Amino acid sequence: MAVNLAPPAPGSLSPIAGVELGFAEAGIRKAARRDLMLMRLAPGAVVSGVFTQNSFAAAPVQVCREHLAAGSEFRAVVVNAGNANCGTGEQGLQAARATCAAAAQLLGCSPQQVLPFSTGVILEHLPIDKVERALPTCAANLSADHWVEAASAIMTTDTVPKGASTRAQVGGRAVTVTGIAKGVGMLQPNMATMLAFLATDAPVARPVLDRLVREVADRSFNRVTVDGDTSTNDSFILVATGKAGGETIDSVDSAAYGELRDAALAVAVPLAQAIARDGEGATKFITVSVKGARNGSEALRTARSIANSPLVKTAFFASDPNLGRLLMAIGNAGIEGLDTSTVSLSLGDVQVIDRGGRAASYREEDGVRVMQPPEITITVDLGRGEAATVVWTCDFSYDYVKINAEYRT
Amino acid sequence: MAVNLAPPAPGSLSPIAGVELGFAEAGIRKAARRDLMLMRLAPGAVVSGVFTQNSFAAAPVQVCREHLAAGSEFRAVVVNAGNANCGTGEQGLQAARATCAAAAQLLGCSPQQVLPFSTGVILEHLPIDKVERALPTCAANLSADHWVEAASAIMTTDTVPKGASTRAQVGGRAVTVTGIAKGVGMLQPNMATMLAFLATDAPVARPVLDRLVREVADRSFNRVTVDGDTSTNDSFILVATGKAGGETIDSVDSAAYGELRDAALAVAVPLAQAIARDGEGATKFITVSVKGARNGSEALRTARSIANSPLVKTAFFASDPNLGRLLMAIGNAGIEGLDTSTVSLSLGDVQVIDRGGRAASYREEDGVRVMQPPEITITVDLGRGEAATVVWTCDFSYDYVKINAEYRT
Repeated sequence: MAVNLAPPAPGSLSPIAGVELGFAEAGIRKAARRDLMLMRLAPGAVVSGVFTQNSFAAAPVQVCREHLAAGSEFRAVVVNAGNANCGTGEQGLQAARATCAAAAQLLGCSPQQVLPFSTGVILEHLPIDKVERALPTCAANLSADHWVEAASAIMTTDTVPKGASTRAQVGGRAVTVTGIAKGVGMLQPNMATMLAFLATDAPVARPVLDRLVREVADRSFNRVTVDGDTSTNDSFILVATGKAGGETIDSVDSAAYGELRDAALAVAVPLAQAIARDGEGATKFITVSVKGARNGSEALRTARSIANSPLVKTAFFASDPNLGRLLMAIGNAGIEGLDTSTVSLSLGDVQVIDRGGRAASYREEDGVRVMQPPEITITVDLGRGEAATVVWTCDFSYDYVKINAEYRT
Repeated sequence: MAVNLAPPAPGSLSPIAGVELGFAEAGIRKAARRDLMLMRLAPGAVVSGVFTQNSFAAAPVQVCREHLAAGSEFRAVVVNAGNANCGTGEQGLQAARATCAAAAQLLGCSPQQVLPFSTGVILEHLPIDKVERALPTCAANLSADHWVEAASAIMTTDTVPKGASTRAQVGGRAVTVTGIAKGVGMLQPNMATMLAFLATDAPVARPVLDRLVREVADRSFNRVTVDGDTSTNDSFILVATGKAGGETIDSVDSAAYGELRDAALAVAVPLAQAIARDGEGATKFITVSVKGARNGSEALRTARSIANSPLVKTAFFASDPNLGRLLMAIGNAGIEGLDTSTVSLSLGDVQVIDRGGRAASYREEDGVRVMQPPEITITVDLGRGEAATVVWTCDFSYDYVKINAEYRT
């Protein structure tokens, strides 16, 4: 059950000139569900991406990195759900390359202009024959209006397809940004997220796009965690088709760069939050805001220590103000020389910890009250500096265990 | 439900000359259950301890550190369950000192010769009046034969009291080591464990005992994890009463030191394993053995990444050989420059990963078979060095969520 998260309404995801999407039921893991997505990009589209920091990067991640290092213009993106093509060795790399070759043949481009993505079970071989058989169906239904269908075709245990769109003035012209994402578990993205695909019609030079994709990832997908487990397949790409026309954005110091970054964040942040809202078994959406840190790393470590603590997460599931667990989690963040007497913490509008201890004003009934709503903000002030960050997560319920105990079976 | 863990049989915990134990129902959190323990030490007993690395060290931990830094000979240990006396500021420190003063008055020693310990809910004030009222009951039933009762008096959500004893020849004389421990959640000890108390009648000089307590902790309690959350109250002390007589062990290079260390480990390792066996909601006891690491830190990071992954733990709960999750967890250990092609992994006697990918010999039915028993060993070879370690943990079940969602209420 996702927390305050509706699927994108039909027509709510704006088309991006130069991007068409197709989908199919390839039967990769289960029959009769969408599990293959093809995105066709018009000539001239530039793509940048960031990928998982897990040492066991999946075969498609390795192939994406190769292709992105070798070229700048790409014609297609292929995504399969149901199988991660990870831990599959040379055979896995061949399957990822065969996916690119099949899409290239259908669309009339080189395999190096195709970027492959996979998500699903690890350590099992990708049934490449099923991918090859279903790709022509994807090619046959390519449409600029298929963003919602594409969002549904990349889901695994997601309960809601995730998409967002925005329009903005960038360098004096109207541009559109649309994105889709998937991911609900094995999820603490590190430099990327499970799978997220953003496209804009703005014209952007590749080095600038490389910087933009990292900046957007760091302020959106890299701030989400469900269970602290970083997937082997995390990938986030940003496509710039240039179809909005006008001068190419070729400097990160330009006003247009800042405008495009804000537009991209206006899509990426709600997508990132959607991932936590649809976290496996989630009943609550939790925002962890940390300020007063000496640097960003301290702030992020503290926020993640809270957001990943099974004890904190089960307390939120139970709406039980067992708030000492928050103190425990802050203390475990590994902050060198933390003077606990400068630490304060509020839950919603209720101060819980003051100068390192239970706030004199704290009343159990206030704790009970602020633990009830499905959306809760935890605010920590470490009281030792100016750095701040925000992390989004969800609670830890019976259904997390159920979903993950039954995922394959 | 603890995994293959019976309570210590009456009389199975050997008395230690110079140690007596008393207990009481103080009603600190719940009525009609043992929650207070007093250990009286004969004059001349030497004590060393190691404590939590959590920044929010509880008040009794702070007082123990003070007392251990100031002196070497101790006359009493006081432990309360039901309240952690953590996040309680100056009032908490006063409560811990008042506990020491009350015990000191009863036993005729100085408050600085008393070591206080607390375990239970964080961020609530310790009802010191209840402790003071119940301590005389503890003093009245002091007995060298009360180790099992003492083990039960320090439990929180533990389902089984935990104790172990051994006898050994140390420096040519017969010595005894007996220990008790508690802990089932908020449990990834860092330099110590929840609460563990070991005593021996061997005569040991304080500097040697300081070294011994660290060495034993590193090879026993620091190798256990239930949920990766390090408690604010972790404490492990080793008492040496000297009542076995003979020459004091005053060198870590002596044969007697090695013999005593082995005897202490013979008690500490099963106690540490007992904590994982009784991990909150545990249905399986899992041993994670990592070898082929470049150093101990790599080995430990890898073992803990596996042992703390919610996805790995739920797969073991389900007896589902979703073994890609093990690969994911190894990849997340943050091993610099890990060449995945040298990594192999076996589950029991079944090889699952060979040279970084699915082993050609692996069959799903073998995976299903080795996931069934209540005790499972995971063996990882990183293939890049000689360092090795072992970590003990448990699976992650509905009952973990249930216990932690209902703990306070």
